[in-house]
Amino acid sequence: MSSRQSLAAVGEASFARSERVSAELLSLTYGSVVRQLLADYESVPEVNKQLDEMGYNVGVRIIDDFLAKSRAPSCGSFNDTADTLAKVAFRMFLGVAAHVTDWDADRTTFTVAFDDNPLSEFAVLPPEHGGLWFSNVLCGVIRGALEMVNMKVDAKFIKCKLRGDETHEIRVALLETLTEKPPKGED
Amino acid sequence: MSSRQSLAAVGEASFARSERVSAELLSLTYGSVVRQLLADYESVPEVNKQLDEMGYNVGVRIIDDFLAKSRAPSCGSFNDTADTLAKVAFRMFLGVAAHVTDWDADRTTFTVAFDDNPLSEFAVLPPEHGGLWFSNVLCGVIRGALEMVNMKVDAKFIKCKLRGDETHEIRVALLETLTEKPPKGED
Repeated sequence: MSSRQSLAAVGEASFARSERVSAELLSLTYGSVVRQLLADYESVPEVNKQLDEMGYNVGVRIIDDFLAKSRAPSCGSFNDTADTLAKVAFRMFLGVAAHVTDWDADRTTFTVAFDDNPLSEFAVLPPEHGGLWFSNVLCGVIRGALEMVNMKVDAKFIKCKLRGDETHEIRVALLETLTEKPPKGED
Repeated sequence: MSSRQSLAAVGEASFARSERVSAELLSLTYGSVVRQLLADYESVPEVNKQLDEMGYNVGVRIIDDFLAKSRAPSCGSFNDTADTLAKVAFRMFLGVAAHVTDWDADRTTFTVAFDDNPLSEFAVLPPEHGGLWFSNVLCGVIRGALEMVNMKVDAKFIKCKLRGDETHEIRVALLETLTEKPPKGED
């Protein structure tokens, strides 16, 4: 079972089972965190990095919850991983729909695109912080969560509505499939 | 309409209308914030203060959303305010039930008590940070939100399950009812 329709159904079921809090509370709390980081760190690139690292710490923890609650089919390919991320995980955790687009030729890099983003719902990007990827925590979450299921990825924002883009887009590239045990014959 | 039953119904309706995200995402993101503050600041009391201030910034913004979505009856007394906070706001934003207890004699101080707390769901209080009020952001939220409706309050945690207490309790004291305009006759 890996068709888009089936995965969407899994996402809906997960949605119903999970404990929910208001998107506004998450949005405002996250906005407060970003403001604090901008005040504490000297450079916007450093804030982007801190948000990514914060997300990584969330991702490595949230994956257990995802596997326990989503009942998503296990991912046989990176293709399945992309669909599960966009169709099930985004809906389960953020309550929004996302879709996969722009695969590269060797199917190791894709874009996850989404129109609604609870994290940035109340946010405005101040001109002096134009280089900020406001929702960069999401890249870290994806990176941390996929690493726990043995996929080392690079994830970075390439479009953000706060910057005037028409949608939010995160580019995800598979760097390495980690093996749980060293290959046979290796010392 | 200020009975507990009616307010609970308002809370349910609000719950259904609001956009929701997973409690796990809020919990893990908030935990990540607290860890970062513990790393950045030297003293636990300072972290408690930072969390409270972060909450204040959330509270002054979230009140509009609350008033727009809750359709809660306007509060004629501090008694009504307490009930609306516990029965409607906690359910609407955190998805949990809370109740009001321990009023003082002149009805200006009460305790809001709650068993489930999404913020601390995945948290463990490290022994070296025993003085941390982990969910202190909530005190700030209450303080900020009530200030916007002309009630200056002091709000502080007095019990927390992470410290081994049987419940979470926040003590809320009315310090001053603010007037929107200066009293007549004053310069």
